[in-house]
Order: sequence, then C-alpha cells, then structure tokens
Amino acid sequence: MEQFLKKAKYSSRVISTLSTKIKTKVLNEIADALVENENIIIFENQKDIIAGKKENLSYALLDRLELDKSRIQAMAKSIREIATLNEPVGKIIEGWVVSSGLRIEKVTTPIGVIGIIYESRPNVTSDTAALCFKSGNVCVLKGGKEAANSNQIIASILQEVLEKNDLPKEIISLLPDDSREGVAKLIKMDDYVDLIIPRGGEGLIKFVSKNSSVPVIKHDKGLCHIYVDSSADLQNAIDISINAKCQRPGVCNAMETLLVHKDIAKEFLPKVKVQFDKQNTKLLGCEATRKYINISKASEEDFYTEYLDNILSIKIVKDIDEAISHVNKHSSGHSESILTQNYTNGERFLNEVDSACVYINSSTRFTDGAEFGFGAEVGISTSKLHSRGPMGINDLTTYKFKIYGKGNIRE
Amino acid sequence: MEQFLKKAKYSSRVISTLSTKIKTKVLNEIADALVENENIIIFENQKDIIAGKKENLSYALLDRLELDKSRIQAMAKSIREIATLNEPVGKIIEGWVVSSGLRIEKVTTPIGVIGIIYESRPNVTSDTAALCFKSGNVCVLKGGKEAANSNQIIASILQEVLEKNDLPKEIISLLPDDSREGVAKLIKMDDYVDLIIPRGGEGLIKFVSKNSSVPVIKHDKGLCHIYVDSSADLQNAIDISINAKCQRPGVCNAMETLLVHKDIAKEFLPKVKVQFDKQNTKLLGCEATRKYINISKASEEDFYTEYLDNILSIKIVKDIDEAISHVNKHSSGHSESILTQNYTNGERFLNEVDSACVYINSSTRFTDGAEFGFGAEVGISTSKLHSRGPMGINDLTTYKFKIYGKGNIRE
Repeated sequence: MEQFLKKAKYSSRVISTLSTKIKTKVLNEIADALVENENIIIFENQKDIIAGKKENLSYALLDRLELDKSRIQAMAKSIREIATLNEPVGKIIEGWVVSSGLRIEKVTTPIGVIGIIYESRPNVTSDTAALCFKSGNVCVLKGGKEAANSNQIIASILQEVLEKNDLPKEIISLLPDDSREGVAKLIKMDDYVDLIIPRGGEGLIKFVSKNSSVPVIKHDKGLCHIYVDSSADLQNAIDISINAKCQRPGVCNAMETLLVHKDIAKEFLPKVKVQFDKQNTKLLGCEATRKYINISKASEEDFYTEYLDNILSIKIVKDIDEAISHVNKHSSGHSESILTQNYTNGERFLNEVDSACVYINSSTRFTDGAEFGFGAEVGISTSKLHSRGPMGINDLTTYKFKIYGKGNIRE
Repeated sequence: MEQFLKKAKYSSRVISTLSTKIKTKVLNEIADALVENENIIIFENQKDIIAGKKENLSYALLDRLELDKSRIQAMAKSIREIATLNEPVGKIIEGWVVSSGLRIEKVTTPIGVIGIIYESRPNVTSDTAALCFKSGNVCVLKGGKEAANSNQIIASILQEVLEKNDLPKEIISLLPDDSREGVAKLIKMDDYVDLIIPRGGEGLIKFVSKNSSVPVIKHDKGLCHIYVDSSADLQNAIDISINAKCQRPGVCNAMETLLVHKDIAKEFLPKVKVQFDKQNTKLLGCEATRKYINISKASEEDFYTEYLDNILSIKIVKDIDEAISHVNKHSSGHSESILTQNYTNGERFLNEVDSACVYINSSTRFTDGAEFGFGAEVGISTSKLHSRGPMGINDLTTYKFKIYGKGNIRE
C-alpha cells in the first residue's frame, strides 16, 4: 500500500500542472472509451448483479448497481459535461499589494491525493474520477464490494486512456486492498494522502472520522427538519411536507422530522395526515401530536433516526425557540426549513440553525449540486471546515499565496 | 471535561449571533480590564518567571514569558485593534438565483468551539481569545505550563468582563485539565469541539494530528527554502539570503536551506559566505558546496531540520527541476522563494512548489498576518484544507447556505 501511495503522491505533481487543453482531451477520450467498451462493462457488471442476487441484495440496491447501454451513455455524457466546466485550478481568488510593496495573489491549487470511499453505484467511479482529474487531483477510489467487477473494468478503461496520453495511471486508481483493513490503512497515510471523503453509512463515516489522521470531509446522513410556524400558509405547508418526505424518501435531503407550532397543530395535522395517508407514509408522533391525530408514538430515539424510508416523526413545539433548539440538538447539520410568513422568526431560523443549508418557505429536497447550479457534485458535506453542503468541483481545490517581489527584504 | 465542554458548546449558540456592537463593547472593556489589573497580572506573571528561573528556562523563553506594564498596554492595544476589524460573521460571500427560483446566499458563520493549544507567550491568551470572540467562536485555550499563572489571571479577568455583560463565562475558557492527558481527551471530543489549532513543537503537532478526531489546522514548523537561480541578481540574492536567515533566526518564516544553481555557485558562495561570517552564521553544505567554501558537511538529516537558530544548510542544484524537487521533498509547506530574472523559471517555481506561500525575488520573512494586511493573526497554517498560510480572523469562520423560497417544491 505504501509503495502504491508513493506513486500516487508522485503522480499528483504531474496532474497538478496539466493544461486545461490536455485535461479536456483526456476527459473526452475517457467518455469515448466508456461507450466503446460498453459490452465488456455490461459483461463485468452482470457478474456483480449475479453475485448480488445470490446475496439477496434488495431490488433498490440491484437497480442502483445495474448498468445498461443507456446508463453507460449517461456516464459518458456526465464526463463530457465535467470537461466543459470552468478550469478550477489557477483562479485568482483575491489579489492585492501590501505596504512592503509585495504583490500577493491568492490562487486556487489542487489538493493533492484524495481518497474517496463510497458505495454501490458504479457511475460514481467515473464521475468522481473525472471531477478529481479536472481539478488536478489524484484520486484513490474505494467503491463498494458489491460493485467490485464493475468498478475494476471502469477504472482500467480510464487508466488505459491515461497511459495512451503518457500520463501515470496512478492518477486514477482503485485502492488495491479494498477490505476494511485496507481502508483502516489508507486513512493513516497522511504522508501521502491529503484528504479523505467518506460517503456512505453512519458506521463507515464514524469509523473514518474517529480514526483518520488524514483530514476528512464527511458526507454523513441527512436528518432534515421542517418547522411549520404558526403563520405558515397551511396549504403550502402541506404541499412542501409531502414533497420533502414522499417525493423520494430514500435520499439524504428528504425530511425525517416535522415540527409543528402548537397554535396551528389542531388545524394543520389532520389535513396533512390525509395527504400522508394517500402516500402510505407511516407517521409517528409526540404525545401532543397524538391528541390531534391517531398515530403511533415517536420515541426520543425516533427523533435521532434517519429513516431513508416513507416514515416521518412529528413533534409539536411551543415556539420558535423550542423549534430551533430541537433542530440544533437532533439534526445532522444537513438541511432544515422553516415555513412562515413571520419576518423575525424566518430571520432567527436562518441565522440560529447551525446546518449547511437552511431554507425558508421551501422543501429541503433542493440540497443538491445540480439544483445549486454547481454542475456535477462530489456529494453533500456535513463537515463544517473547508467545504459545507453541496460540494462542487471548486471544493476540490485549496489555495496558495503567490508573492511577487522586487528584491524585498524585511526591515 | 465532558460537562465543561457541553457548557462550551451551549455557549457557542449565544456568542454566534451576538451583534457587532456588543462584541465591540465587550472587547474594549476587556482591554480596559487588562490595564486596570496590570498590577495583579504582573504579580501572577512573576510567579511564572520565578518558577521558570528555577527550572532553568533559557533567557529567550523567560523574555517571551515576562509581562511588564508596557507589554500589558500592548496586549490591550491589540484587543482594541481586533475590535475594529470588519465584522467577519454574516458576510455574503456569493449570492445567486437558481432555475427553480430559489435565491441562495453563501454566508459566513462562526465555526463553533475552537480548541487552541500553544506555548509560552501570555499575550497569545488574550489575542486568541479576542480573535475567537470577535468571530463568534467559543475558545478553549491550553497554554504552556510555564505560563500557567499568567494565563489563569488573564483568563479570569476576561471572564469577569463576560459575566458583567451577562454572557456565559465559558465563551473564553482555559482547558480545565492542562496536562498531556487533558489534551488527549480534548482532541477526542468531536461532539463538542469543532476545530483544534495546535501551535507549537513538532512533537505536539504530530501527536494532535495523528490522534485527533476533531478537525485540525496545523501550525507546524517552517522549513523554508530560498533558491538562487543562475539568472539571479547576485547582490540582491546576498541581501535576501542574509535577511531571510539572520534578521530573526528563531521564527518559522526564516530560511533554513539555501539552494544555489551550479552555474553561479562559484561566484555567489564565497561572496555570501563573507556576509554570513559577519553574522556568525554557522554554515553546513553539500559536497559540491564545500568545493567552493570551507564549511562543515550537511547530512541528509540537516536538510530536514528546522534549526530555529543562526545555522544554514546549503546545497548546489543542477537546474530548476532539481530545486523544485528538493523543495517539495524537504519542505514543511510553509514558505519558499526563488530569486531569478528568468520568467519561465519564476513561473514554474510559483506553480510547481506545493507550499502555502511561494515568493519570487523576496525574502521569506514576509509570511505573517500583519505583513499580509490581515491585522492580528491566528498563526500560520501548514495544513492544506480550510485555511493555508497566514490565518486572519476570516479563517475562523465557515459558511452556510441560506435559501429563500416562495413555497418551492421539487418536481
């Protein structure tokens, strides 16, 4: 592993100064190569599908795993789009002249070697590799075991294109040892790896955060709240609640807990229940909620649970203070929304809730790189440092100061 | 410790939304309180000085530790200056409207609870506390043992001002257990602490980086290089070399290694040696260097050593490639400079050297928050993520997205 990472580190020197022109050429060739090799990709992918069926993977997982011609076309299209993004490296963020006469430029640079740990969907392999490549970074990818054959063939197609262009193949690599022990080793290699991005289940995120000596940007769960304030437009609050929970319950920006102001609970709760019932949503509520609608009891544990399913916890709160406190205590810092017509309450929620994305009068479902206009996204960061919320390609850069003198010495 | 950090976390809610007006008032009162209490500060500081003399601390350390009236005035002045800095919280970094009609604002926010580990100088206690306070953060300070009495009295004066203003005193705290074990506990408390900034010796930095489950911004050593290219102005190269090494050898932005292009070594080295001899600088050189000047041999180890003293390693390189490779292999990523009149070599050095601050035709001694025009500095980050190089008050913030809807639901 150390030998492999040494090569990765070395090749980060090569990629960090590659011109936009060459990067664009390589990315377009990668897109072409994926389409040209679609039959062998599908062949290898079917091995994963057959193994997955044997291991009784859920239908949803198998669906995410499976590649067909149209999905491979979509992977290629996504890479061509990444190739057209503005060059993220070398941007002058700020520039000024200081009293000593030095001219200072704060300029974006690649981060270096980035380890990315993720699950099932094989398109993440090509997408992530392309995002790292475009931003001048080496990536070390550790995909899910269930997609091992798919990831292997995709990576080798990408590496062939690199070698054809006289670039070290280590610029895009799969982690050679993809066991849990391999991950445990990788996250200790701070001499060679500059950043770890774990995307996946809570257990993985916790393991990496607690044990990594490499800096980590977490893509943790989304325990998202919507608070319906007493002055909310009720019809709109119903529409948004249904959208945030039911449009796609299995994603991280879906609502998990609905907070309702006590003054509108009596009118709002029975109405919203009618709509949730139509969606077969399972509702759990606090004691006060259950006085208005006949649903099961939500435990304190439920308010800490990301269901990723068509299940919702409901709690009645007495005011905006209790709403904000509940959110800050239970949230995973992902996305929260207040529905209100009251200016002061809206301002307070936006300012006092400590999450990456805080909404007023909107569904939480918009927390997404594409919806934010970032183009392809690396993921949604629930870390506070360096990058928070939807991570676009610019978040895969850091910066340096370039300082231009005329023979300056310090007095 | 957990109880204490829970309170710290809780009080971060209070400070995060404090108005500029109140923050300014409190900071000015802190400055006043330090001056009013100068006698008791000096009294407590003398206990540290006496203990330090007993433990045979070096003259330099004792000098950094000692407080007199003029130094306390300077501490107060520094806090008043921090109070006048532009409000770092709530700045709209970017703002745009997306196709769904949502208006997005990317806004600076405090980080939360910041643990800062540092050494000897007691003015760091008041400076750091003021920088964290102004940026809406709670600080947990762990100063050096040798300054324990000084730090204790300074912190208690600051806390008195907080309480007089009905603010929780935990906003500015000393770590209750300031032993190594205390630090080891602190850096595992990721539920309560959002960032650790270690400033100090290599051992401390390594210990914290390797073991922290809280994100870390390192303030590591400065193993700074100057490369004298073949086209450098020789007189200027001599002036800059002397300035970078001798003006203040004990600081992190001083030069530790001088790289010299082989084509000018014969002319440059004897001339620069004359000047270094006048400064009593101890020179160590590679074999090639020692053919031109009579100095001791530099080992490979020396090229990895931050002397923090009037000692310099010298190496002859055959070209810009060898210079860049040497720097990227041995540097601590702090500050490096190329002296050249050659445009291409200058560009290559600025682009390919992977350090926080990369200079052309200047001494490295300018890497400093004040010299960069940032006002008071938190330190010099040698980390790559979130903040790199001189850290000003703005680096003590992160951001959130505030998203303004009109009842938006996702299609």
